[in-house]
Amino acid sequence: MTAEIITIGDEILIGQIVDTNSAWIANQLNLIGIELVQISSVADKSKAITEALDLAINRADVILCTGGLGPTKDDVTKKTLADYFSTTLYRDEQVLAHVTAIFKKFNRPMLEVNNKQADVLANATVLHNETGTAPGMWINEKGRIFVIMPGVPSEMKYLMEYEVLPRLKNIPGKSAIVHQSLLTAGLGESFLAEKLASFEESLPTHIHLAYLPKYGQVKLRLTGFGTDGTSLEKEVSTYLATIEKLVKPYIVGVGDISLEQTLLEIMVNNGLSLSTAESCTGGYIGHLLTSLPGSSVIFKGGAITYSNELKISMLGVSEQSLIKYGAVSEQVALEMALGAQKQYATDYSLAVTGIAGPDGGTADKPVGTVWIAVAGKNGAKAKLFNFGKIRLPNIERSAANALIMLFYLLKEEVT
Amino acid sequence: MTAEIITIGDEILIGQIVDTNSAWIANQLNLIGIELVQISSVADKSKAITEALDLAINRADVILCTGGLGPTKDDVTKKTLADYFSTTLYRDEQVLAHVTAIFKKFNRPMLEVNNKQADVLANATVLHNETGTAPGMWINEKGRIFVIMPGVPSEMKYLMEYEVLPRLKNIPGKSAIVHQSLLTAGLGESFLAEKLASFEESLPTHIHLAYLPKYGQVKLRLTGFGTDGTSLEKEVSTYLATIEKLVKPYIVGVGDISLEQTLLEIMVNNGLSLSTAESCTGGYIGHLLTSLPGSSVIFKGGAITYSNELKISMLGVSEQSLIKYGAVSEQVALEMALGAQKQYATDYSLAVTGIAGPDGGTADKPVGTVWIAVAGKNGAKAKLFNFGKIRLPNIERSAANALIMLFYLLKEEVT
Repeated sequence: MTAEIITIGDEILIGQIVDTNSAWIANQLNLIGIELVQISSVADKSKAITEALDLAINRADVILCTGGLGPTKDDVTKKTLADYFSTTLYRDEQVLAHVTAIFKKFNRPMLEVNNKQADVLANATVLHNETGTAPGMWINEKGRIFVIMPGVPSEMKYLMEYEVLPRLKNIPGKSAIVHQSLLTAGLGESFLAEKLASFEESLPTHIHLAYLPKYGQVKLRLTGFGTDGTSLEKEVSTYLATIEKLVKPYIVGVGDISLEQTLLEIMVNNGLSLSTAESCTGGYIGHLLTSLPGSSVIFKGGAITYSNELKISMLGVSEQSLIKYGAVSEQVALEMALGAQKQYATDYSLAVTGIAGPDGGTADKPVGTVWIAVAGKNGAKAKLFNFGKIRLPNIERSAANALIMLFYLLKEEVT
Repeated sequence: MTAEIITIGDEILIGQIVDTNSAWIANQLNLIGIELVQISSVADKSKAITEALDLAINRADVILCTGGLGPTKDDVTKKTLADYFSTTLYRDEQVLAHVTAIFKKFNRPMLEVNNKQADVLANATVLHNETGTAPGMWINEKGRIFVIMPGVPSEMKYLMEYEVLPRLKNIPGKSAIVHQSLLTAGLGESFLAEKLASFEESLPTHIHLAYLPKYGQVKLRLTGFGTDGTSLEKEVSTYLATIEKLVKPYIVGVGDISLEQTLLEIMVNNGLSLSTAESCTGGYIGHLLTSLPGSSVIFKGGAITYSNELKISMLGVSEQSLIKYGAVSEQVALEMALGAQKQYATDYSLAVTGIAGPDGGTADKPVGTVWIAVAGKNGAKAKLFNFGKIRLPNIERSAANALIMLFYLLKEEVT
């Protein structure tokens, strides 16, 4: 069974908002074995909406529309849909009562545009929207299922969870889709592909391997399509086990897991603590770690030492090293890591010093030069990188590679 | 002039990634007067790509394709495009040299799949991708312009900025679209809307006011549509001047400027320095500041003190205060701010301590409780917030409001 999402509204087309709804819906559909074949974002115009619907019914069994139901623009979308299904709009008493109640709750006067929120298509099953004033609609026509939802993420999610997904689950004859993945680090996409080339060729046509690279990490994801979910689950997992064997040395974790999460688990399980000493990453590594619930168990804190003065006063980096080797050097990176480990009394520490750009580069140390050091049980080690001229990716790559170095050090010393 | 975006790849359709590229591209196109009429996200399949192209050329003058150019999957997309334009692929020597150089820089051996990155369409102008191995392509066929770019955001952005937008700007016959905006902080969207209600009604139909709220800040953007760019520019700016008068006390900056950028400029112009003391934000404020080129001029660094021990040792917070008031308290927030200001010898400092969640809340200090303190010329002041139960938005709101507090303190003491 296939689906298409049609997002209606100018906000996405003028770049005012990022369409996060579609990714969320896609995930939910996948979990119940519905394959999303296309996402079309169209304007709030009758012609654009009708065209999108005409094309969608030739591609998909289920067409999910979001957006275009706000009080100020519901006219276009609902009228267009009424014409498309050659039906009419009527004012639903239950919906009107719900809308009125919401306005009463916030003591806001009802305007005629607000009453219009209760206008629904005569051929639709009305889907109650507890979280807002625009109701959802479920329409079974032209041998397809059409779902109409508001674009506000919280309202769309409520309708999907409580009204749409339960109904979709009950539709028979859906194919099963199974995703299984593992995360690797330290080997490039193309090198993994080489190691997995013959394996990939051996895959049956209903199972597909995807490479999802991100800053020194590559997620390998197997997707299987079939009829019986349970047997498909088994089949895919045997192929995943083969991948595990083939790329074993580079595996961070099995399952849909992040590098940060893996590090957290390893360190929690081994009762280890961590601190950071960040120069060019400016706190981004700390942010990545502390974005995880429970990170306070292992992460004690760290220093953001942008200036040389603070490298000395906070981390005990020697002034001589800064003068002799410069702030961006192996020596200073090592002193930063060992300084953090000592000052903050942690088992492990991470240090990054580099030139994030766009300025500050020299002939022998061009913009993008980054030294990363990790300190553990047996002292510290440092590695030189160049992550290019553009500031933000440079910061993100530096942070990712620092975490990768920590992962491999832990692998060496702990696991 | 109209444009359509076609994103190619399964990652978006299975909900693996959120499509942030399209919103960014839409904004950029708008700025040069190109209207985005549709975004189509299709699978990595020849049929889907061809269909999308066939439809796009009937809707748009410019078709921008992103994704599907990675070393392991370039086959499908590039071959499909070659067939679509009934042309061939050839290996471009310059691109190959660039790809080889990148691999040399990272000391990684080249594989055949990597060589393939240098295969480009015979009918295309090759667009140099400084930031990666997949080149962009510019194709002028069927009376349309086709732009082919990789899906990696940093690479797509590089190609747009340096290769695509300059070329698009030079195409005549575009209608004028003018955007002018200003940033406010400290007053909610609906309150601003109330102050601007009668102004908004007075706007001509070809000029539109948008409210773009984000964590305590609201960007007000005027968009004007017309034929003569220069006169439209003038017209819109007079309306913007009126908005400035109406919401003066809440203006952070005029133009498309961020709060961080404004803070940086104020502090640079006044020769002021800044440090941070972050508990629950875990380095995120440092990251926001150091994401800006030139931030090292004002930002000396700071402490990430997740543990109480580090609040004491790094910032000199008194153990008594931690015991008596708890780590999340006005007292500790103030001591953190003053400690950072003193220890790191900066004119100003920011401190945040709170309960980011999902756990750690108590009856009198529920999850989401955050104390933010700012220290300046005349000591420090603190403010209590509650940013709700969800960890990441909680961290982002805390950081944003800390910066807003700093802005108002600087307004008071400096500007």
